[in-house]
Amino acid sequence: MAYRVINFNPGPSALPLDVLMKVQEELLDYRGTGMSVMESSHRSPEYDEINEQAMLLAKELMGLGDDYHVIFVGGGASTQFAYIPLNFMHGGKAGAYIDTGTWSTKAIKEAKIIGDMHLAASSKDAEYRFIPKQKDIDLPNDAAYLHITTNNTIKGTQYHYIPETGGIPLIADMSSDILSRRMDFNKFDFFYAGAQKNLGPSGVTLVVIKEHMLSKIKDGLPTMIDYRTHCEKKSLFNTPPAFGVYVMKLVLEWIKDRGGLDAVEDVNRQKKDAVYEVMDEHSDYFKGTAEKDSRSWMNVTMRLPNEDLEKKFIAEGKEAGFIGLKGHRSVGGIRVSLYNAVTLEGAQRVAEFMENFKSKN
Amino acid sequence: MAYRVINFNPGPSALPLDVLMKVQEELLDYRGTGMSVMESSHRSPEYDEINEQAMLLAKELMGLGDDYHVIFVGGGASTQFAYIPLNFMHGGKAGAYIDTGTWSTKAIKEAKIIGDMHLAASSKDAEYRFIPKQKDIDLPNDAAYLHITTNNTIKGTQYHYIPETGGIPLIADMSSDILSRRMDFNKFDFFYAGAQKNLGPSGVTLVVIKEHMLSKIKDGLPTMIDYRTHCEKKSLFNTPPAFGVYVMKLVLEWIKDRGGLDAVEDVNRQKKDAVYEVMDEHSDYFKGTAEKDSRSWMNVTMRLPNEDLEKKFIAEGKEAGFIGLKGHRSVGGIRVSLYNAVTLEGAQRVAEFMENFKSKN
Repeated sequence: MAYRVINFNPGPSALPLDVLMKVQEELLDYRGTGMSVMESSHRSPEYDEINEQAMLLAKELMGLGDDYHVIFVGGGASTQFAYIPLNFMHGGKAGAYIDTGTWSTKAIKEAKIIGDMHLAASSKDAEYRFIPKQKDIDLPNDAAYLHITTNNTIKGTQYHYIPETGGIPLIADMSSDILSRRMDFNKFDFFYAGAQKNLGPSGVTLVVIKEHMLSKIKDGLPTMIDYRTHCEKKSLFNTPPAFGVYVMKLVLEWIKDRGGLDAVEDVNRQKKDAVYEVMDEHSDYFKGTAEKDSRSWMNVTMRLPNEDLEKKFIAEGKEAGFIGLKGHRSVGGIRVSLYNAVTLEGAQRVAEFMENFKSKN
Repeated sequence: MAYRVINFNPGPSALPLDVLMKVQEELLDYRGTGMSVMESSHRSPEYDEINEQAMLLAKELMGLGDDYHVIFVGGGASTQFAYIPLNFMHGGKAGAYIDTGTWSTKAIKEAKIIGDMHLAASSKDAEYRFIPKQKDIDLPNDAAYLHITTNNTIKGTQYHYIPETGGIPLIADMSSDILSRRMDFNKFDFFYAGAQKNLGPSGVTLVVIKEHMLSKIKDGLPTMIDYRTHCEKKSLFNTPPAFGVYVMKLVLEWIKDRGGLDAVEDVNRQKKDAVYEVMDEHSDYFKGTAEKDSRSWMNVTMRLPNEDLEKKFIAEGKEAGFIGLKGHRSVGGIRVSLYNAVTLEGAQRVAEFMENFKSKN
């Protein structure tokens, strides 16, 4: 058996071991084709099935109907930050954004480069410690869309409600919490997620587009930037990031086999409870950086009493087999990322480690 | 040992077996890290080394100095068709293009969407059977650049000279013949290649930019579209297509271990000679679609006396263990793709098969 750490990386992050073993098994000969998936034509029946299955599984797990397009594209979520305003922000309409920290700030930066950005809400003045509430959202009647970031990996916050927009298209970056819990995905008109947290390897981005949004796309865009290109061709206009889609398909199957989002949510709830309970028990030692009602299930962020203790925590964690506990370089501290592939046992072990660390230090 | 076909796929295409075996071996535990490369942070020392090594190996194999940036991006070469004019075609200057069939036609389409396209040469009227000669290139003195497609997978043609541009930046799509032969890469100001033919899996594109081109980039572009972003951050501005870069690094090492481009060219010459010799011997049976002086070393394209024979050829080829011999759906016929990972033995076996097929049919 291969040596495996307990991986709390913030992304790219842990993948299910079962998925990796399947990838390893099929690497030289994908299902009797005599070649790797990486060597297979994207026009082959084998890849067509992978592409179709990944699309159908994503829809099934999210409860999406025929009025949604699911496409797989390259370039990462960062590319979507620009493509969204390029496609949808025109005709004098502003794109509205809620600023909840680093990733939404980056999305906002691109909107400003491209056109008219309206800041609908922000928790910047409170160091992004919370998610703005519905009543604090200032949304113009004629906004092109409202863009939110459902989970904020660096500040450790997450939306626990879906904003009401009164008919204005709701767009969400779900890169770091997609498929981690039940959610009414039908309330979104457009959402996207870089694969490297809950879906698969980096290099492929899942984009979901409600049919009516296609009619809102600006004409005259370059072909690869226009979302209609990929919807019409079912992600096969050009050569897709095929290996990434293949691994994503296996991850989606793994989610379905576990019992879908009900089961995933149940485990994820236990995982985050295990860690937050220790934090709350010793709240003057493990100081959470997010307000309680905005806490992320995916990224538990905290500061210890001082930086030396934080360094010691990370170093001793590494000795205990835990990887990726360091906070983002922009904020420091400790971050425990609990994406889908982190096991309940892994979360419990880090919680136990926290208890022991506290009692000894 | 895994079952393996002889893979003549036009792209995605064969990868070196040694590379695939290495990927398989390291899949669950990359060099003692206890995790897959897919699970590793792109900010980790391990990935940093992969990224740096891939960049240095690419430069070394191509003989490029410090005045070149080598970056790895997502989105495929098709995305570059738009990004190139978005970055470089401005200030009233036209982008000049040579049209040698499907892929250059697609690049031209994007240039027309974005700005002022100048057609410098074309072999369209001759069904793209040849590569236009230097004397036929009509290049305005103030063109922003000249764009060529060095190898044309569908029409089976390839440049066997590098156009002189009199100081106008030379840009090339090398997706289907990069690193297949010696070439003075220093004559190019910008070139790019989707990985899925000679470099690795689909989903990562190699882009090479000469330093002076950075000062020609239009200001005010979205961050991910502006090439300066990726040059400055050495492909690590956002999460890169890490697994693809890792496989590409292994492919580049494999090329270096074989003896670099001298050795690769030598084998590729023997491969294409083996196939073209049979074609020339029976030139009224295996009818090449490219003129002799424009023939591609990478994609040998031909028609048989009738479509029934072509179907039979493909079917019997499959029985013999050959995959991917069907011509592109847009042109039909037969195509034998001989990318770097196709072995000399593979090429000789398909040549022998052609001989036998001809004598029996």
